[in-house]
Amino acid sequence: MTRERIHLFDTTLRDGQQTPGVDFSVEDKIAISSMLDAFGFDYVEGGYPGANPTDTAFFSEKRTEKAAFVAFGMTKRAGISASNDPGLAALLQAKSDAICFVAKSWDYHVRVALGCTNEENLQSIRESVEAARASGKKAMVDCEHFFDGYKANPDYALACARTAYEAGARWVVLCDTNGGTQPAEIRRIVETVIATGIPGSSLGIHAHDDTGQAVANSLAAVEAGCRQIQGTLNGIGERCGNANLVTLVASLSLKEVYSCRFETGIDPERLSGLTDLSHAFDELLNRSPNHQAPYVGASAFATKAGIHASALLKDPKTYEHVPPETVGNFRKVMISDQGGKSNFINALKRRGIVVQKDDPKLDLLISIVKEREATGYAYEGADASFELLAHRTLGTIPEFFTVDSFRVMVERRFDANGRIKTVSEAVVKLDVDGERVMSVAEGDGPVNALDLALRKDLGKYQAEIADLVLADFKVRILNGGTAAITRVLIESTDGDGTRWWTVGVSENIIDASFQALTDSIIYKLMKNRHMAGRMAAE
Amino acid sequence: MTRERIHLFDTTLRDGQQTPGVDFSVEDKIAISSMLDAFGFDYVEGGYPGANPTDTAFFSEKRTEKAAFVAFGMTKRAGISASNDPGLAALLQAKSDAICFVAKSWDYHVRVALGCTNEENLQSIRESVEAARASGKKAMVDCEHFFDGYKANPDYALACARTAYEAGARWVVLCDTNGGTQPAEIRRIVETVIATGIPGSSLGIHAHDDTGQAVANSLAAVEAGCRQIQGTLNGIGERCGNANLVTLVASLSLKEVYSCRFETGIDPERLSGLTDLSHAFDELLNRSPNHQAPYVGASAFATKAGIHASALLKDPKTYEHVPPETVGNFRKVMISDQGGKSNFINALKRRGIVVQKDDPKLDLLISIVKEREATGYAYEGADASFELLAHRTLGTIPEFFTVDSFRVMVERRFDANGRIKTVSEAVVKLDVDGERVMSVAEGDGPVNALDLALRKDLGKYQAEIADLVLADFKVRILNGGTAAITRVLIESTDGDGTRWWTVGVSENIIDASFQALTDSIIYKLMKNRHMAGRMAAE
Repeated sequence: MTRERIHLFDTTLRDGQQTPGVDFSVEDKIAISSMLDAFGFDYVEGGYPGANPTDTAFFSEKRTEKAAFVAFGMTKRAGISASNDPGLAALLQAKSDAICFVAKSWDYHVRVALGCTNEENLQSIRESVEAARASGKKAMVDCEHFFDGYKANPDYALACARTAYEAGARWVVLCDTNGGTQPAEIRRIVETVIATGIPGSSLGIHAHDDTGQAVANSLAAVEAGCRQIQGTLNGIGERCGNANLVTLVASLSLKEVYSCRFETGIDPERLSGLTDLSHAFDELLNRSPNHQAPYVGASAFATKAGIHASALLKDPKTYEHVPPETVGNFRKVMISDQGGKSNFINALKRRGIVVQKDDPKLDLLISIVKEREATGYAYEGADASFELLAHRTLGTIPEFFTVDSFRVMVERRFDANGRIKTVSEAVVKLDVDGERVMSVAEGDGPVNALDLALRKDLGKYQAEIADLVLADFKVRILNGGTAAITRVLIESTDGDGTRWWTVGVSENIIDASFQALTDSIIYKLMKNRHMAGRMAAE
Repeated sequence: MTRERIHLFDTTLRDGQQTPGVDFSVEDKIAISSMLDAFGFDYVEGGYPGANPTDTAFFSEKRTEKAAFVAFGMTKRAGISASNDPGLAALLQAKSDAICFVAKSWDYHVRVALGCTNEENLQSIRESVEAARASGKKAMVDCEHFFDGYKANPDYALACARTAYEAGARWVVLCDTNGGTQPAEIRRIVETVIATGIPGSSLGIHAHDDTGQAVANSLAAVEAGCRQIQGTLNGIGERCGNANLVTLVASLSLKEVYSCRFETGIDPERLSGLTDLSHAFDELLNRSPNHQAPYVGASAFATKAGIHASALLKDPKTYEHVPPETVGNFRKVMISDQGGKSNFINALKRRGIVVQKDDPKLDLLISIVKEREATGYAYEGADASFELLAHRTLGTIPEFFTVDSFRVMVERRFDANGRIKTVSEAVVKLDVDGERVMSVAEGDGPVNALDLALRKDLGKYQAEIADLVLADFKVRILNGGTAAITRVLIESTDGDGTRWWTVGVSENIIDASFQALTDSIIYKLMKNRHMAGRMAAE
């Protein structure tokens, strides 16, 4: 059976740039357009040449190989001819394969924003499309505010779309510019447009996420007949964002209701690179990926619940809407308060700790974890502390050192020159295999001082922890007030690149930090003896 | 015209707790259930009594006034009678108004996960519903994997729903547990269920966001006839999250396609508190609100300078899908430095501070704020600190007291009985209008000790700060490592119920806390003199 082709149009570099806080340099745009081109998107819209120096520079060369490289711009101004419009001239000169014109299709905006007549606007659409074609470029028209315009004046909105189509636009794109249209309205209006004679194979959809339905609106338009979708990587864009092309690529490829009828230009073998594409883009934006993103988020295939986790392991397929590896993602089963016994057994097994289901120590471990999580510990984010706790409860763990005492002092006073000075100092006294050691250190803050003092002299183990580095430190106050319970999470890493997390909880932030710091050191010593970190090393 | 009632069922405290990284304490659950109850949700599902100590403790009392308080749990186990099932007994004893049972409705899971026969599962559903009703509680049944189950074996999935309905369940909830079902499938299957005789007024929908369509799936089910929606605040939940009730409340209330046909139990006047509800919940989770969230995000009505911004100012209505104030949000046009200046003037004016546009001190204030925000201060979350900074920069502010020095010590050692003991002690030395005062205090942690010492003796101002209470304390680490920059936000309140936020930033958490604590006290003294807090008092 032949499947119909859905064309994917990426506007990350143009509409995506409207995201608050996002500003692409020419270098960013070059990197992103290469990623998009390589992945197999049909159209890469690069910006608005002539509107700002970055976009003009970006369009000084063609930036894609396979994908059509698209310049965005306004239709010619009313009252002057196409050949005399400097904005249009800049667009025609840009090194693009296609031009996507934005055209008003709501009569209200024609009057208020453009200040011209309805007929003049139609003429601008017609002549702009013709000018693009005459210069050898494909023409497309984004009908701005199409759905709101259609509700206000259906005849005029349709006239705009029809004018673009009849002038020879390859694509007439129906835009939900304000983002408030609902899927059922999108479906009905697209069907009406097609009924007036513009074929779905010439229609595109441009949706925004203002009611959390940009993806649903795009798919509703496809079901109604549209064959082009405009969207952005990870759904960035003005206000609440544009339709998320990462999600749409996965659904069109993996959901049978679509994949049995449609195909995209993306090679099916590329799909397993989807998670990487999404994360590489976030990396470029210097932001943490959204853990809960559909398909590609770190949590998209993570299970916490005990009731699900045990069955999940029997047959993952029936608990996952698609296999995570198809999009380059992973299954993740987490330890938590809510976990059942089999969850625990598996979590331990993956760490090389074998325990029988009827071992009373297992019940003890589960009750300790539940009790501690009730007081604020969060072992799902602190694998190494969980592993140490399991070793302590189930079997033996060497006692590398004991802590006699520690003391941390923070003092703010005036120095000899009358300047305010804050000093943080920590003293740690340990017993390392019978040897008494004590260290003092100053740090940038009390936790830093404590960390430095603790790792300054670990007696005979000192050489072993030389490559231990604290990579991250997180603090969470678990309830209100300065007398609140504090949870500290510490991420550590060492010479071979392994990373592990430890946790401490106390009403005293220094004490909580100390717990997490000592757990990290003990884990490192265990790891050096191949007694820990099996999973991490896998 | 009478509108049909849509019932909103919040499962933030149960399914929302499946979110990786989210673990509610009993205190969290009490705070959140109060927020949900006050806002007007119909059902508040609090957790799974008997499954863990937190949920058991939470269900020791009824926690809602208007909303029905719902306990979640499994149907009785096959092979034993309802009266002999300890899990069911724990559910019946919980102080809830209703029980929501989760029941398998995919025959595959009945066999593999439950290990019983299809008929035994139906019997468990029937007897569990009957047991709940016999104990005077409303019964509901979440038909787990309903849509996948329906695709695999429609007759059996329907039999599960029918059994629940015929046993007297108030709601039979069709769950898209794996989250992969598409809106068109949801619509078709819900219509089929209703055609078999279960009325839509007894049907609910439970959707997940694995294809970014939890909201669309919920609305598709409502269009097909379901009259209950299950979801969570801000869409938290397992994997990619549950249907976002914040978005759904706004769309059901403000989108004419729904509001002309349906109404919810939420008082329309409450709607303008929606943004606050969403942000208060994020505060409680100690995470930054999603700027791009539909309706309530800081960017949801923000326009970046460009082709839209100037037209937007002519007539905002045609550029906004709903008026931002209806949901308690604001329009934001991000413009040039010049615009930044008038923003500042307005922000100051609302605090009763009048400054001329050409006053060089205004430029100084703007540059100080920009510089400080670049180093980690966040004045948008710390109104009181912003106001004090403005007063200090623009005009005069009384010098109530100066800090000579402070010292904080945390010590952990063994006490006389060999038990580990951690002591936090703070010493503060102040000059209050020429009078030298010094105080020492012990606290639960270093910040608590410092707070107590600082407020122990403020000389002649001591009586004035008697009603000052620290309501909340937040810490955010702004970059990795234990030597990282720390931002502390403190919320204070006093006898007349005013609340204000102050901020401190330092590489030393104690120092950052001290800045925020002293700002809070100075703000209180200013407020007592009617020199601050105009806006807060309005």
